[in-house]
Amino acid sequence: MRALYWDGGALKFRENHPEPKTTGGEAIVRVRLAGICSTDLQIFQGYMGFRGVPGHEFVGEVVKGAPALAGTRVVGEINFGCGFCESCRRGLARHCSKRRVMGILNADGCFAEFVTVPARNLHAVPESVSDEEAVFTEPLAAAFEILEQVEVDFTREVLVLGDGKLGILCAQVLAITGARVTLVGKHADKLKLAKGAGVRTVLLADWKPKLFDIVVEATGSTSGLEAALAAVRPRGTLVLKSTVAGAHNLSLAPLVINEVTVVGSRCGVFPPALEALARKKIAVTPLIEKVYPLGEGLAAVAQAGKRGARKILLRN
Amino acid sequence: MRALYWDGGALKFRENHPEPKTTGGEAIVRVRLAGICSTDLQIFQGYMGFRGVPGHEFVGEVVKGAPALAGTRVVGEINFGCGFCESCRRGLARHCSKRRVMGILNADGCFAEFVTVPARNLHAVPESVSDEEAVFTEPLAAAFEILEQVEVDFTREVLVLGDGKLGILCAQVLAITGARVTLVGKHADKLKLAKGAGVRTVLLADWKPKLFDIVVEATGSTSGLEAALAAVRPRGTLVLKSTVAGAHNLSLAPLVINEVTVVGSRCGVFPPALEALARKKIAVTPLIEKVYPLGEGLAAVAQAGKRGARKILLRN
Repeated sequence: MRALYWDGGALKFRENHPEPKTTGGEAIVRVRLAGICSTDLQIFQGYMGFRGVPGHEFVGEVVKGAPALAGTRVVGEINFGCGFCESCRRGLARHCSKRRVMGILNADGCFAEFVTVPARNLHAVPESVSDEEAVFTEPLAAAFEILEQVEVDFTREVLVLGDGKLGILCAQVLAITGARVTLVGKHADKLKLAKGAGVRTVLLADWKPKLFDIVVEATGSTSGLEAALAAVRPRGTLVLKSTVAGAHNLSLAPLVINEVTVVGSRCGVFPPALEALARKKIAVTPLIEKVYPLGEGLAAVAQAGKRGARKILLRN
Repeated sequence: MRALYWDGGALKFRENHPEPKTTGGEAIVRVRLAGICSTDLQIFQGYMGFRGVPGHEFVGEVVKGAPALAGTRVVGEINFGCGFCESCRRGLARHCSKRRVMGILNADGCFAEFVTVPARNLHAVPESVSDEEAVFTEPLAAAFEILEQVEVDFTREVLVLGDGKLGILCAQVLAITGARVTLVGKHADKLKLAKGAGVRTVLLADWKPKLFDIVVEATGSTSGLEAALAAVRPRGTLVLKSTVAGAHNLSLAPLVINEVTVVGSRCGVFPPALEALARKKIAVTPLIEKVYPLGEGLAAVAQAGKRGARKILLRN
């Protein structure tokens, strides 16, 4: 099959990559559309020491296995838990210590014609959700994860720092709760993408610091943390969405003195994201910059790596 | 009156320090017993730039003001809020941005014959609580603050790191909930103090790392944070009780990947602490090392600063 392949030193396009195999409980999905995420770009810098087919954002249809979903259009959760440990039994396969992660850790990903996914990770896509919307389910679920972890309602003043794709999705998701959401970023054109969704947007250059009940750090930079910490009110909550590879150097005394709660937040479950897409609560397609055919995957990755790029998709 | 006085460079004992004054809503308390806390020792290193009478742990009796409490034995909350801001209106005077803090920030403390305290900060001490117990109300309230912020019950596995006074109080408070509490520290003699209270104690040298639902960092050192973070299970909670002056240098990526919640925790309200003392739920007096007369305050402070010292009290 056709696939992109990361060999640890270079990303290659292969016409004849071996087709994926399945064992019990797994399904093979023919990929329709896949999204390039900044985690993929980090993998091409050596993150996680991954080797194989990258990619973890996709929509496709089941072609083998998972008989209940045969022929169905699906999206798939990316953490493949062992199914037996305490985390898995708590419904937290995404924290299984033996987990494989699609396109990230010991499991091939979706920048290919076909991808293998445990059947229990698959979710049927409602008819009213287009492929171009469904491919955002995974990053959107990561934004909804905040609502699984933190109580947010209309009484809250929320700040989202960072106008990247994740920041824009987080701002929209938080606005659904009725909270007053402010998105601060460096790019007027990106801030515009969140404006329609009841989000107040402010250019960083014009921003007058004030204190918020909840601050979401989605800048993807180490400097974002200090700015975020400075914007949380005493007894407020700081949500960390960026996995920054570098070390932070800062005093945590203000965190103790102001009794701030810091919540690390990563992947989420898919159902709320799919429901929000089906009910047209979130505008994801304006985030799309360009769709490349899979065969032009190298050019697509190069484009995704450009500063300020929006979402780049690969069509199979 | 007799008082200890910190002039920014040296701690002095004064026989004729001016007696405290009151304005509306304040009371004067004749101090019976005061406790020396590590925050006091930090103040003598320049912390907070404080000048004046230090000390914030006390029990005494009302001699002026607060007519409802006249002659009553009292303890007092140490944060003096403005009474009007949003924090104060939420009942969080301890987070008032204009607050004064007894013996720490713009308010004289209790290492003296008399101390001025806003009447609304005072709590009557139940008869069954001795002076030697009541003087622990403030640090005990700081330990109870954890229960105000984090849900703890018998299903939780809890680790407390650090066998200082705060660590020992935190371990006992957490054990009240029925949680399985392990206290890890460096000093066999100190660990012994928590053993009676249903707390499992382990010497750091003998400790085999495992994962806990809740970890309380009470080591007072920067290195404690990394050890604490490594001991929290995915989706678990890390409570920071130490205000460490230095900067931390660490990667927060594990916090995001494991979706850990970090809760900064400082002062607490007094009623639960007083109730626990009245009901003999916490053994505080074994923590007392020695009681000095106020006139020997300098020697008392020197003793409190010795490595491994337990609680040093000043008797007026």
